[in-house]
Amino acid sequence: MSGSLARKRVVVTDAAAFMGPDIMAAFTEAGMDAIADRRDLTATTAAEDLIKEAGRVDVLIANLTFSYPGGLAHEIDDDEMTRTFDCLVFPLHRLVRSVLPQTIERRQGKIIVVGSADALRGKPRRAAYGAARGAQHAYVRNVGVEVAPYNIQVNATGQTFVENPTYFSPEYQKTEEFRKRLEQVPAGRLATGREAAEFILFLAGPSSDFFVGQVFPFAGGWVV
Amino acid sequence: MSGSLARKRVVVTDAAAFMGPDIMAAFTEAGMDAIADRRDLTATTAAEDLIKEAGRVDVLIANLTFSYPGGLAHEIDDDEMTRTFDCLVFPLHRLVRSVLPQTIERRQGKIIVVGSADALRGKPRRAAYGAARGAQHAYVRNVGVEVAPYNIQVNATGQTFVENPTYFSPEYQKTEEFRKRLEQVPAGRLATGREAAEFILFLAGPSSDFFVGQVFPFAGGWVV
Amino acid sequence: MSGSLARKRVVVTDAAAFMGPDIMAAFTEAGMDAIADRRDLTATTAAEDLIKEAGRVDVLIANLTFSYPGGLAHEIDDDEMTRTFDCLVFPLHRLVRSVLPQTIERRQGKIIVVGSADALRGKPRRAAYGAARGAQHAYVRNVGVEVAPYNIQVNATGQTFVENPTYFSPEYQKTEEFRKRLEQVPAGRLATGREAAEFILFLAGPSSDFFVGQVFPFAGGWVV
Amino acid sequence: MSGSLARKRVVVTDAAAFMGPDIMAAFTEAGMDAIADRRDLTATTAAEDLIKEAGRVDVLIANLTFSYPGGLAHEIDDDEMTRTFDCLVFPLHRLVRSVLPQTIERRQGKIIVVGSADALRGKPRRAAYGAARGAQHAYVRNVGVEVAPYNIQVNATGQTFVENPTYFSPEYQKTEEFRKRLEQVPAGRLATGREAAEFILFLAGPSSDFFVGQVFPFAGGWVV
Repeated sequence: MSGSLARKRVVVTDAAAFMGPDIMAAFTEAGMDAIADRRDLTATTAAEDLIKEAGRVDVLIANLTFSYPGGLAHEIDDDEMTRTFDCLVFPLHRLVRSVLPQTIERRQGKIIVVGSADALRGKPRRAAYGAARGAQHAYVRNVGVEVAPYNIQVNATGQTFVENPTYFSPEYQKTEEFRKRLEQVPAGRLATGREAAEFILFLAGPSSDFFVGQVFPFAGGWVV
Repeated sequence: MSGSLARKRVVVTDAAAFMGPDIMAAFTEAGMDAIADRRDLTATTAAEDLIKEAGRVDVLIANLTFSYPGGLAHEIDDDEMTRTFDCLVFPLHRLVRSVLPQTIERRQGKIIVVGSADALRGKPRRAAYGAARGAQHAYVRNVGVEVAPYNIQVNATGQTFVENPTYFSPEYQKTEEFRKRLEQVPAGRLATGREAAEFILFLAGPSSDFFVGQVFPFAGGWVV
Repeated sequence: MSGSLARKRVVVTDAAAFMGPDIMAAFTEAGMDAIADRRDLTATTAAEDLIKEAGRVDVLIANLTFSYPGGLAHEIDDDEMTRTFDCLVFPLHRLVRSVLPQTIERRQGKIIVVGSADALRGKPRRAAYGAARGAQHAYVRNVGVEVAPYNIQVNATGQTFVENPTYFSPEYQKTEEFRKRLEQVPAGRLATGREAAEFILFLAGPSSDFFVGQVFPFAGGWVV
Repeated sequence: MSGSLARKRVVVTDAAAFMGPDIMAAFTEAGMDAIADRRDLTATTAAEDLIKEAGRVDVLIANLTFSYPGGLAHEIDDDEMTRTFDCLVFPLHRLVRSVLPQTIERRQGKIIVVGSADALRGKPRRAAYGAARGAQHAYVRNVGVEVAPYNIQVNATGQTFVENPTYFSPEYQKTEEFRKRLEQVPAGRLATGREAAEFILFLAGPSSDFFVGQVFPFAGGWVV
């Protein structure tokens, strides 16, 4: 598998955030030619510029992040709602739109959306974020079916309870609240970022060609 | 059931479009006090104005429509993508935000989102529309869990193959393409709008209180 | 709706157990001609005998019960595993096999399987029971698609946290364990048996004709 | 990954049938110590004997097969129904029951059930087979949650449209019926057995530890 991965050019967006660093580490070790992009993708032409600069893109990892404060549904104002979609949904479409033509032409390509389990199972205070993540998943289902005949595979993950300094700081991991939340996770622990990245690496590789338009929960059993 | 429905005040949005007319007919026959609203909900304050004017709202039917031309993913421009969400997603949030406070205060309320099966199973040429419908479903999952403790039920349908003059004109129903599409529907026919409305009526009634944050496919078996 | 329900002949199996009493009450009030059957359906010819005796059957409510002690997977012996399927799965097939010919001939019929959410989301100590309930759901998916062209609708529920004296006695409802379990249910309460029965009544009625081979969670948001 | 796989002892059941040969090839190439078992697992003590003989088992691949003729639901007799479960369901439980104690003791183990998409989406003439495959999936959901705290991962696939001489002979692949069926598969082709085996290899490896009780469709987009 490494052999064929080694010949692949990958773009990883928001590479300094969310799953970016772990994905870059796993992909680089696997010998892929991975481009760590860090530009702000909310700018209208940013996605198109990125793909142009990258040239040939075999695999696009749409790792999009939004630092969501969370809030009760009736307290989320228009601005917050809009920004959530500006960060998570519209850049995804611009990325996909920019990369599809070359992959359709070559009859080969992979797009993997790093998504959230918040779209799959509800939680309080996640309405805007969950909705935007749900848009990503449904987008993947539809584009996945559309481009499958061109041998392009579009898939997504739906992760949660993955270790990261933002949501699960060492201090927070000592709290009673954290302990209570973990009780809901059959696996009884957080995933490491590396584990999440290795599944994404599998999806980026040649063995995943029969998965199209699919959403994979990655959640320690919290959602399946 | 009719008895308790008869005391309920309902707001039906986009009442002249999509499932609006069938819902109004079914709800009125059931003795509900149903307000058929037709205003353009993309205007920023429209949803809030509507709920203020309506006064007490026991049931909100978020029937939101967007005349989607459809198109290949890499041909959908920013404007079309944005408009899809402006029509289907952001007004939903503004409606829910406006109606939640009074229902939370009364510890009773129902919100039903008339959604699309395009969010549940992919089709070509539906990327933007499917994504926006997916945002609705995931929004419902999260808000549904959040407000369930206040005895408010938020649920959604995911319909397709429901008879309507826009997508399934009598002429179109005579075509070979239509016949081929129907082959994919185990029920072997289109639903009437009335059938779809009667399920929504069930969700609006008192027998549905144990459903929260749930998405119900309504699709003749095309998706379950 | 009552009008058309009033003309329907229904068979409710295991009528003294599980959801049987609540279904009988709701169906009888709705004016249906409901036969409460109590025979042991594990006997090979029992299902066939029942349908023969019943004559015309418009609606079959496959309410099958098994008093499952629960147990760790590696402690469930062959006998317990077999009995679970003998009670929940094989009688279901014999019932369906017996009732299908007459409904196919009349081009009309409904079969509703009262199922369990244990098939949809895992719990410890439920391996045998959950598996048998999962067999019911997948059976419904396949038969539902097969007979939909004959205007026969086969659907199932997947219920949990429904009040009943066996699993949720008044004493048990006062325990800390019960309180903790309820925390996992977004609705924050048990459903009454009547609520569950009213959804089954909806599925038995004429407004549900576009649902085929579908499984409906009924779980207060515990699973959606 | 190969490194850690190389130290693992695997049992593959029904190794000459269904996905057995492809799994054996992929696992052996990956350096795993894979035991190809071919015994008839319908015999009551066969599963226990197998695990005893195998000694240490790190990974169990429950590849169970039943040559299902298919048939209309109302024509499936008791004998066929029973045999389906005797081949696909009861041996699965006996295998799991036999292998769990040693893995619980070591706090490490993986069980992967090679399942069918027939449990996930209905087709005509698959009632018995689909039901038994559905029992496998729900069994996995429940056992998966139960043993996850012991660092044991139980997961399943749900495959269809995977190339094999039994269901998709070269002759059959030339027929119009085959061509029509392929139209329903977004990927537009059959998977090779090797592709299916490589996903199972991923699930058998150390990168899959955060998946528990999960069912993975493997279906070219036919079901997701």
